[in-house]
Amino acid sequence: MADSAVQQNLVAKNAEYASKFDKGDLGIPPAKNCIVVTCMDARIDPAAAYGIDIGDAHVIRNAGGHVRPALRDILISQQLVGTKELLVIKHTGCGMLSFKNEDALTMVEKNLGVQARANLEGFDFHTITNLEEAVKSDVKWLKDCSYVPRDVLVSGWIYDVATGKVKKVV
Amino acid sequence: MADSAVQQNLVAKNAEYASKFDKGDLGIPPAKNCIVVTCMDARIDPAAAYGIDIGDAHVIRNAGGHVRPALRDILISQQLVGTKELLVIKHTGCGMLSFKNEDALTMVEKNLGVQARANLEGFDFHTITNLEEAVKSDVKWLKDCSYVPRDVLVSGWIYDVATGKVKKVV
Repeated sequence: MADSAVQQNLVAKNAEYASKFDKGDLGIPPAKNCIVVTCMDARIDPAAAYGIDIGDAHVIRNAGGHVRPALRDILISQQLVGTKELLVIKHTGCGMLSFKNEDALTMVEKNLGVQARANLEGFDFHTITNLEEAVKSDVKWLKDCSYVPRDVLVSGWIYDVATGKVKKVV
Repeated sequence: MADSAVQQNLVAKNAEYASKFDKGDLGIPPAKNCIVVTCMDARIDPAAAYGIDIGDAHVIRNAGGHVRPALRDILISQQLVGTKELLVIKHTGCGMLSFKNEDALTMVEKNLGVQARANLEGFDFHTITNLEEAVKSDVKWLKDCSYVPRDVLVSGWIYDVATGKVKKVV
């Protein structure tokens, strides 16, 4: 099948990127020995907004920038690579603030049918009620987590999608 | 507690980014209506390497760029925002090629003790044996997945961390 517009864009922009690429000798361990967990939101460019140079950090992105659904990734980063610092960066205007599990299930039923909805009953979409509390809750969870060594430095932040600014929460 | 060097870097680089920021009016839905799933690897800068402008795409990143552990994120992107295209981009030299579940459990036991290991028995770290096969397997899984509408366009790619080049697999 012919490439879609999105695929053509990837191929064209990547060719330009690769033509100037000079970072082919970096190793697996992040140079700054850290992990950033942030949201998949399209308005966030972590490298630019958070000042992450290529090779610096593991960047985990999921819906909400949540740490609980990222346990596998965090475990791998710390146990296999030995990262020692973890930054959780959620953001204003997050889609996860705009719905509840029930709303998601209603959409699933509408789009995919009653059986799909039934299969997902009890599924936790990890929506957010209060942004600042969600950051604090994630940081506390990491500090209490039996899979995260006590010497890992954990901090929590909020990125403002309207201003491009981060602020430290905890 | 005083900010760590990593945190100081975030604050300083972000202040510079925010001072020139002019994309504060973007909405939640990705302008290109798509999702990119890729690895958390520090050597990948998706925006630059894959040509993703701010606002273009949901970017999901986890250990391996795997779609199965990203089902929650994909569901939210498609059901709540209505994204219609999905690109899976794994990469050469991925850490997930370098160990097996048993190796990870051995590290957990060494670093966190026998109880931590016992609690993780049976945990799937989603390691990779063959990169190209892993891309194909993820694409097939998405195409068969009862939670992904049949009209969502799915493609699979490999990014080469040595050259900066992507190639289409499927």
